[in-house]
Amino acid sequence: MAETKKMSIIVHSGTFDLAYPPLMLAAAAGAMDMEVNIFFTFWGLLLLKKKGFKRAKLPGLMALVTPMMRWRVKQVGIESLPNLLKAALETENVNLYACEATMALMMVKKKHLIPEVKGYMGAAGFLDIAVESDIQLFI
Amino acid sequence: MAETKKMSIIVHSGTFDLAYPPLMLAAAAGAMDMEVNIFFTFWGLLLLKKKGFKRAKLPGLMALVTPMMRWRVKQVGIESLPNLLKAALETENVNLYACEATMALMMVKKKHLIPEVKGYMGAAGFLDIAVESDIQLFI
Amino acid sequence: MAETKKMSIIVHSGTFDLAYPPLMLAAAAGAMDMEVNIFFTFWGLLLLKKKGFKRAKLPGLMALVTPMMRWRVKQVGIESLPNLLKAALETENVNLYACEATMALMMVKKKHLIPEVKGYMGAAGFLDIAVESDIQLFI
Repeated sequence: MAETKKMSIIVHSGTFDLAYPPLMLAAAAGAMDMEVNIFFTFWGLLLLKKKGFKRAKLPGLMALVTPMMRWRVKQVGIESLPNLLKAALETENVNLYACEATMALMMVKKKHLIPEVKGYMGAAGFLDIAVESDIQLFI
Repeated sequence: MAETKKMSIIVHSGTFDLAYPPLMLAAAAGAMDMEVNIFFTFWGLLLLKKKGFKRAKLPGLMALVTPMMRWRVKQVGIESLPNLLKAALETENVNLYACEATMALMMVKKKHLIPEVKGYMGAAGFLDIAVESDIQLFI
Repeated sequence: MAETKKMSIIVHSGTFDLAYPPLMLAAAAGAMDMEVNIFFTFWGLLLLKKKGFKRAKLPGLMALVTPMMRWRVKQVGIESLPNLLKAALETENVNLYACEATMALMMVKKKHLIPEVKGYMGAAGFLDIAVESDIQLFI
């Protein structure tokens, strides 16, 4: 029996354009029966807040045209971020972790985060997972 | 005989400063007989358009000083982005892939891309390559 | 005896928010007896200048609120960047490398860099280290 392949992703960015890659990769990898662990830190943590993915905006001045980008994404048949997250989680192979230090820094409490968050940890905790992974990415 | 080492890179950024690392790494790795697979997605896809690397600009307001940066790069003997791409491809160990979802999103057709693009794929296709690689980077 | 785990990080960014992850990861990994090699390139090289970490600012217009962020970081008990660097180096498992091409490009001389820099190299040199690592990240 082949060993389960694992992917670890650190999500540091919170913008619309950079929220897609971890979810796209997670949904695809989860469907391929890889185990995916995503650690949300700094701006990335804000995506785990209730409606965080829904509200993600393009960076800088492009934030203003995020609605247009969302519309275009829908038009070409790409899932919205909330739906893509749902698809990733439905594979049951994708785990979401929140960075504890960022939670303190940004005054984010567990009750502010979506209930799908599996755990809360620091850099050391995530390194334990990452070092046993086949793929590691910092986004 | 030693197994060929492999590097997989996801290029998400399209700015001048972030276009250099994948090409620098690819040219170096290709010369070391590593196999390099680069997947261009989101803003990164625009680099694969004809003259895409040539036109890459520094981010935000720094875009205005890109000509000065290009001049300085040349002055210290670093290759231009188009020449560096050429050097990477001449190793015959570097493969370029375009993200299909981004092509649809940004209305980019195959005819708009440089002919050196080897293939068109999605996240799942690239994960198949990445999971068998020794190095994976998201740029 | 277990083989030493290794992590290789390319630091391309020079902003306050992106200077934390490599140091956080390095300090944690170093304390776990992993070997950590960090290669500072492009904007990241500026962090290796004397007072570089101390002066790092948030990106774009947010640069203006960096003092507020520094104060908040301190308030929640997170180390300052200079102290975190010190902690990482005190594990004796963390090595800092400067990108030679960037030094030429940005007219940075060895005397401008902190004395803790262990070596100066290009992409090929760093790839030799990265390919033998268990974790590789581009930040």
